[in-house]
Amino acid sequence: MPTGTLIVEAVRQAGLDLNIPCGGQGRCGRCAVLVDNRQAVRSRSELRLSQEDRAAGYVLACQTVLEGDVTVTIPPQERIERRLVTDRIATKVTLPFVYDPKQHQPMQLMALTLDPPSMDDQTDDWSRLKRAMALQHGISELTIDLPTLRKLGTTLREANWMVTAVVELDTWDRPQGPPRLVDVVPGHATNHLWGAAVDVGTTTVSLYLVDLLSGEIAAQAAEYNAQIKRGEDVISRIIYASRNGNLQEMQALVVDTINQILERACGRAGIRPSEVYKMTVAGNSTMIHLLLGLPANSIRLEPFITTINQPPPVQAAELGIAIHPQAHVDCLPGVASYVGADIPAGILGSQMCESKTVALFLDIGTNGEMVLGDCDWLVSCACSAGPAFEGAGVRDGMRATVGAIEEVWINSQTYEPTYRVIPDPKLEAQGQPTPPRGICGSGLISLLAEMFITGVIDKAGNLNFDMGSPRIRRGEHGPEYVVAWGSETAHGRDIAITKVDIDNLIRAKAAIYAGFTVMARSVGTDLSTVERVLVGGSFGQYINVEKAIQIGLLPDLPWEKFHFLGNTALKGALLALLHREFRHHLTTIAQKMTYLELSADNSFYEAFTSALFLPHTDLAHFPSVAEVLAARRNNPISRSVQGGS
Amino acid sequence: MPTGTLIVEAVRQAGLDLNIPCGGQGRCGRCAVLVDNRQAVRSRSELRLSQEDRAAGYVLACQTVLEGDVTVTIPPQERIERRLVTDRIATKVTLPFVYDPKQHQPMQLMALTLDPPSMDDQTDDWSRLKRAMALQHGISELTIDLPTLRKLGTTLREANWMVTAVVELDTWDRPQGPPRLVDVVPGHATNHLWGAAVDVGTTTVSLYLVDLLSGEIAAQAAEYNAQIKRGEDVISRIIYASRNGNLQEMQALVVDTINQILERACGRAGIRPSEVYKMTVAGNSTMIHLLLGLPANSIRLEPFITTINQPPPVQAAELGIAIHPQAHVDCLPGVASYVGADIPAGILGSQMCESKTVALFLDIGTNGEMVLGDCDWLVSCACSAGPAFEGAGVRDGMRATVGAIEEVWINSQTYEPTYRVIPDPKLEAQGQPTPPRGICGSGLISLLAEMFITGVIDKAGNLNFDMGSPRIRRGEHGPEYVVAWGSETAHGRDIAITKVDIDNLIRAKAAIYAGFTVMARSVGTDLSTVERVLVGGSFGQYINVEKAIQIGLLPDLPWEKFHFLGNTALKGALLALLHREFRHHLTTIAQKMTYLELSADNSFYEAFTSALFLPHTDLAHFPSVAEVLAARRNNPISRSVQGGS
Repeated sequence: MPTGTLIVEAVRQAGLDLNIPCGGQGRCGRCAVLVDNRQAVRSRSELRLSQEDRAAGYVLACQTVLEGDVTVTIPPQERIERRLVTDRIATKVTLPFVYDPKQHQPMQLMALTLDPPSMDDQTDDWSRLKRAMALQHGISELTIDLPTLRKLGTTLREANWMVTAVVELDTWDRPQGPPRLVDVVPGHATNHLWGAAVDVGTTTVSLYLVDLLSGEIAAQAAEYNAQIKRGEDVISRIIYASRNGNLQEMQALVVDTINQILERACGRAGIRPSEVYKMTVAGNSTMIHLLLGLPANSIRLEPFITTINQPPPVQAAELGIAIHPQAHVDCLPGVASYVGADIPAGILGSQMCESKTVALFLDIGTNGEMVLGDCDWLVSCACSAGPAFEGAGVRDGMRATVGAIEEVWINSQTYEPTYRVIPDPKLEAQGQPTPPRGICGSGLISLLAEMFITGVIDKAGNLNFDMGSPRIRRGEHGPEYVVAWGSETAHGRDIAITKVDIDNLIRAKAAIYAGFTVMARSVGTDLSTVERVLVGGSFGQYINVEKAIQIGLLPDLPWEKFHFLGNTALKGALLALLHREFRHHLTTIAQKMTYLELSADNSFYEAFTSALFLPHTDLAHFPSVAEVLAARRNNPISRSVQGGS
Repeated sequence: MPTGTLIVEAVRQAGLDLNIPCGGQGRCGRCAVLVDNRQAVRSRSELRLSQEDRAAGYVLACQTVLEGDVTVTIPPQERIERRLVTDRIATKVTLPFVYDPKQHQPMQLMALTLDPPSMDDQTDDWSRLKRAMALQHGISELTIDLPTLRKLGTTLREANWMVTAVVELDTWDRPQGPPRLVDVVPGHATNHLWGAAVDVGTTTVSLYLVDLLSGEIAAQAAEYNAQIKRGEDVISRIIYASRNGNLQEMQALVVDTINQILERACGRAGIRPSEVYKMTVAGNSTMIHLLLGLPANSIRLEPFITTINQPPPVQAAELGIAIHPQAHVDCLPGVASYVGADIPAGILGSQMCESKTVALFLDIGTNGEMVLGDCDWLVSCACSAGPAFEGAGVRDGMRATVGAIEEVWINSQTYEPTYRVIPDPKLEAQGQPTPPRGICGSGLISLLAEMFITGVIDKAGNLNFDMGSPRIRRGEHGPEYVVAWGSETAHGRDIAITKVDIDNLIRAKAAIYAGFTVMARSVGTDLSTVERVLVGGSFGQYINVEKAIQIGLLPDLPWEKFHFLGNTALKGALLALLHREFRHHLTTIAQKMTYLELSADNSFYEAFTSALFLPHTDLAHFPSVAEVLAARRNNPISRSVQGGS
């Protein structure tokens, strides 16, 4: 079996079956296997494995390639599944507090038994309900909205004066109340109270359907943001939305997406979307503006101003979101045009502020948003990295979907690549490989790093034509390296990375690294003081730290300092949904976060220029890369000595 | 000229012209003339004349009939007009306080000059506006609604950061604020701020368009409530509205009416309806429920319960009212199903609570609502008088429109009637009389009283067939008195009042009088302690006190104790619109008003039975009527001795 074969592939070739429920993307952790020789394998990611798992010799079969002889033991799948399912749920709902809905949750269910009216007691329905609320729940003030008032009399009578009040005690902008009657439902129905936490990403919208009585996630769902068809990145969406009438269309598109995943999640939980009485929403400033129907053009134009960073809660009916019409949709607070609500939510979700140690929080997508700080101070900035790491701005770039090359290894002797493609489940089911269609962000990072380490490109990104490899050639678009020949690909065309692509990627990574540098300098420190690197966002879930460091995208810190936290914005939205103190926390985080506008910062350009090399002009910042380079120089074939076949 | 000829008629017959701008309804007071012998004329109403006018010998030509020889002097119309126009405006805006918009008015205009954003100051638009508001107006807290937020960024930029904020500082249910930004308009436009006060009557909807900076009424308009086509009285409307889908239709009908008069008033003032930023609405509980789209069925069914007596302010857009969509529509507080918001508003408008003397407040329409009290206590009740006094439930009854007999005089010798018809302006312009089509409420009171005083009917309402008048006959529907022969009428049929009609009217007046009795008894007093009778509602404007006392509809008190105040509910809505203290006052009035449910009150039936005679079983309660009856007995032709021709 050739070096670089994925374990999951090798197992299949041996005629055995191994479940990979997430399609081999390393997301679910269910393909964990035992290896007897860790030195003979190389793992891209072990994030889904606990410390104990790793110590016991577990690796993820979909994330680990063979580099030597090794015995693989497949544990009883049931056991693994059960354990990891538990882990997975634990990951989802591990809260930094013991959830007490009575104490933490602003939404409450209150059973009420009203005295029926009589000729001796002609109190109006609303005053009668308020009287019962005061006597039975000690709530003396209560507000009501017109639609709720419109159903009040009928519900009270049909329910024979026994009802359950759905009450919102407070909101972030109204911490002292008064409580609001959001709904009144027949009978004493205090068993279920639902909420939803949403992250509106530029690419993906994700939702947790949450049981507000237990604090548990009942279902989750995610879907591409339907706005994609009107622009891949925020800038093109703003431009589209600023044309006549398009804002409403964009608003409707994202609402449709939310409603779609809401319905899917509710279907799984066996409830109706209208039973959801609260929604928190994280998202970048553009996403939040478009969701609220706010013109976003000023976000795009200098001096880059939002209409609002901390929107008031709005009723679902105002937006068209299909939860209960009077339920509040609470769009979480952002900081600036390019440090939106997803960042404070991510900080909250990552618990960055809970520690006195300095941490670096990253959310790399179209833009790279980053925060440096600890429990006392926070400084943030955003780099217009462009969508290079989402596969755009690169000729054969694509999003991380079926057919995308997501990992590349280059043989340091032959310069021949091995790659892994996000498989098509149908072809996979037939035991067929999925032909590649392009390269996604993680594939590009991996490719760039491998090219650099093997010497296919130099530190300036120039292709080395001296190597004599047919893959290094001058193509239509200038110098390029062929990753896959047309005979291997889905479309029959060669998949290659050009010098132009390489320059774009280097500029993108340089912008991000320059951001780190400027932030650290702004507080008079450097990146070596960083104790934890917290990587949020879905991109972070697929990133290969080693390779990201090798190209100078991530600072050169020990791997154990990197924590890949997945969708921290969604977790932040969940925390804000469950606990009013955490919601207030978010506001505090957003307020205390100092925003550095890099385009107005002279030192940024200097830092950017210094970073326009692989990994950096000053290799002293990247000691581990320097070491690898030195090793390669001394022993250029060291990487393949253990390659078995 | 025959006895009973109206002066306005006599003047016309003499070939002279006399302006009657309100069509001869005694509303405008512009037809005042001088008479040299007050004993030779009889005036129905002098309400539009001041004490001085009356002392000087002025009478209203449209309200005064000739009963003897008299010289009529028509004063220069210009002079009269000017004087009365001044009076009229004074009547409209006489406020019980000197209006200080800064101090009294919750709506405020605030000019703001914002610092334009820059790369050094990327504060979001909303925070920037709030910062200016704090610095320039000392307002540190402010809320905003989504639609206002949606236009904020565009308006600020288009207006080059100079705008006027339309701010609502507080509402009755949120007396401490926080202030709300209702709108933001370009430039420093602090010259105009508009509000509207509305009375939604079952029959008529009336509106004042109010300049909130000066407190003056800029225009007024009134129109029939378009709901009339779905039922003449509240009960039939509730029944109609309770059928499937009809509630929305009824809601839309009254909103259409409001929008129609709003547009008319705004047109006169030269503004757009969307420039109106606040509306207060008085109306009975059914009208308010239907306006808000609240099911009203429980109002009709025992135990007669409203959904809400004190609705929260709602935004105009929620109702479809065409003022500014985010403007608050404040439906004023009611007391019970049949003592709605029009009654506290009427009490406020009549200033009943400002005096220590006991007053009786009446609002007679479909129902008779009444309040007894002073500055310390208030007791109220409602009598299901039925719509008899609005012309319904009576064979030839009709509303007070063109062709309605509105006043009747019966010759005490011949028992021949003289009547006055509400004229058709077209016929009037041609010098033609308007043929009658029926009898309206004031005509019925007048007719009943004349029949009783002249002996055409006895105290039980039985017709006296011994008089030998061809007008007293047995018709299809039993005994009746013919008011107009078919040859005189518009439809060619005789217009008559039947015994059944008479019984209905006696029951209606008995219900109202019994209400007075029960209220007085409930507080251990009697009607003789009443110092003022405050008659609100449009019906009160046309009522003839003498005749109303003669049939026992009004208590027998000296005429000078009666004050006909017109639309006190509308005036109350005006006061609530202008002054936050008066708005709070209304809530206090509604709260302290004790409501007597007459259908649950045993003493009501007894009082009702005692009142089923003309004027009452116990004539001792009606000394002035007893005197008239005694005089008639002694000198049966005394009324016509002075009749000239």
